[in-house]
Amino acid sequence: MTHGFDILVHNPNNGARRGLLATAHGTVDTPAFMPVGTRGSIKGLTPEQVEQTGTQIILGNTYHLLLRPGVEVVERLGGLHALMGWNGPILTDSGGFQVFSLSQLTRIGDDGVEFASHIDGARVVLDAEIATKVQNRLGADIIMCFDECPPYPCESERLERAVERTIRWAKRCQEVHSNSRQKLFAIVQGGVDSDLRRRCAESLVTMDFPGYAIGGLSVGEGHDKMMQTVESTVDYLPKDRPRYLMGVGMPADIVAAVRAGIDMFDCVLPTRNGRNAYAFTTTGPLRLRNAAHGSDSGPLEEGCSCVACRRFSRGAIRHFFQVGEMLGPILLSLHNIAYYQRLMAEIRRRIEDASFTAWAEGQIRLWKSWTISDSNEPETQTPRHE
Amino acid sequence: MTHGFDILVHNPNNGARRGLLATAHGTVDTPAFMPVGTRGSIKGLTPEQVEQTGTQIILGNTYHLLLRPGVEVVERLGGLHALMGWNGPILTDSGGFQVFSLSQLTRIGDDGVEFASHIDGARVVLDAEIATKVQNRLGADIIMCFDECPPYPCESERLERAVERTIRWAKRCQEVHSNSRQKLFAIVQGGVDSDLRRRCAESLVTMDFPGYAIGGLSVGEGHDKMMQTVESTVDYLPKDRPRYLMGVGMPADIVAAVRAGIDMFDCVLPTRNGRNAYAFTTTGPLRLRNAAHGSDSGPLEEGCSCVACRRFSRGAIRHFFQVGEMLGPILLSLHNIAYYQRLMAEIRRRIEDASFTAWAEGQIRLWKSWTISDSNEPETQTPRHE
Repeated sequence: MTHGFDILVHNPNNGARRGLLATAHGTVDTPAFMPVGTRGSIKGLTPEQVEQTGTQIILGNTYHLLLRPGVEVVERLGGLHALMGWNGPILTDSGGFQVFSLSQLTRIGDDGVEFASHIDGARVVLDAEIATKVQNRLGADIIMCFDECPPYPCESERLERAVERTIRWAKRCQEVHSNSRQKLFAIVQGGVDSDLRRRCAESLVTMDFPGYAIGGLSVGEGHDKMMQTVESTVDYLPKDRPRYLMGVGMPADIVAAVRAGIDMFDCVLPTRNGRNAYAFTTTGPLRLRNAAHGSDSGPLEEGCSCVACRRFSRGAIRHFFQVGEMLGPILLSLHNIAYYQRLMAEIRRRIEDASFTAWAEGQIRLWKSWTISDSNEPETQTPRHE
Repeated sequence: MTHGFDILVHNPNNGARRGLLATAHGTVDTPAFMPVGTRGSIKGLTPEQVEQTGTQIILGNTYHLLLRPGVEVVERLGGLHALMGWNGPILTDSGGFQVFSLSQLTRIGDDGVEFASHIDGARVVLDAEIATKVQNRLGADIIMCFDECPPYPCESERLERAVERTIRWAKRCQEVHSNSRQKLFAIVQGGVDSDLRRRCAESLVTMDFPGYAIGGLSVGEGHDKMMQTVESTVDYLPKDRPRYLMGVGMPADIVAAVRAGIDMFDCVLPTRNGRNAYAFTTTGPLRLRNAAHGSDSGPLEEGCSCVACRRFSRGAIRHFFQVGEMLGPILLSLHNIAYYQRLMAEIRRRIEDASFTAWAEGQIRLWKSWTISDSNEPETQTPRHE
């Protein structure tokens, strides 16, 4: 056990590994998937329902919580775990990604950023120190360094400047981080430029963080460029620390990234697509608004033990979407998270029994074939905002 | 046991009774409260969550199900129990109330009604035979006779005609009813006119139904007139059959009606008010949008075992409402149904141990005092449409 991360099994043929990540609120089996609870809630689900999917760790968004209800209120309510009704591990991002993609930036400098809240236009300043201290106060088990997320595509000068800032800001985050129950992870930036990724990774590794994330991907570069970047970046990250691929992704992305050596994922796809009547299943995606499901008395997915599959038919779920009942989005969000957690459990089992390599190849091929024609569908890229 | 209704305890001082109502999908403890699942779903809740509130029987609306997804689809999906994912008792209303209050009536006659769907304007005919056969096919455990629901107030001629039709239609419903696993209940109409109520009740009682409902109340007449009508009507209903007060109501209404001899209730208040941030508690109602709750780390209600109270603070729930997270309405709907079921459980226990009379007096007084100034608040009358 190093830094609370214990690798139980290394897959012999590739980078995949099966591990245990210790946190102040319990241990997480890796590779792990974290559902996203942007504003203190996994949309539409109680924490008990989230637990029933097999979820061990969830994600909260510092940017949103900072704006509403604000860090003082979260503290007075007993911290982020109390706000969310979740007593297991939580990870918060630093707010960097949201600042650069959601808000109206009014000033960006080497020291930090100033932006107008996307809710009421209020002026907010965020920098390495503030993002870290806010996360210290929110009280998640894993917190993230404040980083600059460049857009995609991005001219090389801006990309390089973002990498330099991300490195300097990580150092400042590390210096100001003051909650010993929390692990502070660094984020590697650099777009799809492997030299910049290497430079960023090597600089951050000298600072000795307990975990490393790869940020700035799943922003439109596509599966192949994403995977090339992940594979080249992983080489420069320490083998004994957890690796987290932020905001990813579709099942094919996750399986391929595990194969490259990634241990942690978060993504809004299971919940967001669920709200849009898109169900993930082991035999491919289903669009529940499709009239073909209207009189189908079979479950979403044979053998799935989620409440949507145990209690309801495809036809019933379609009906709920057709009439606008909340239960439709709720049931598919539950089922989709359960699907993702079954996928992660199968990944872990197959790493353990050395059957991962061939299976991963098949899964990636299957999911690519199922989603190849889906460009106009509910997300098959990996949106980052819930 | 007569007609599957067994009265265990009669309260000595008034009409209250503690009973057991047998149905094809299980036995219901009475007095009972039925949450409303208008379109096949108790809004925002899975059937497992509804079960956790102590709910034994739920209500579905024939009018809504007839329009969407339609009775053929419900049949193909395995019937109403399968559609709703609910294997316990279900009661369906006949559609009468919705036809007269929701739809655009194009023709009303002695034989039945023709109306334009409130969804797409499609022309639909409903009469005693159709309403009964549709309910036979939906497959609920208790179904209701098709009745005419006059508005309130209502001129006496129209009220009298509605009563005559309701009586004749009940006979036709009884004659066509063909599903022996279902109990067909009759509905007494007559507004707040005690002579008409008596005439309607006496006529229906000669037809020997296994249960009797009082309809056409909680339409704006207020608590006192409602209770006078209930009390005078109950006198003409058989003692050995279950009595159901439709669409009622606030806790004060329910306790007073139990005292008058009512056994069953349905109402949208716990869910509808829950969606509007109004919580029922044993110490009075709470409005969760109130800024006073913003930093309150205490639960909605001490001692409540629902997930909202076990896992969340008032401040967290207020936050969910403020940011528009579905979890706010979900948690308050759950809590409010749990409150109603705790109220019913306490009513039953107090009838059993002969402590009901004084307690009922106190509850009615308390709830009247808590809601007296609430005319602009989330519903404190008893709306019938979810």
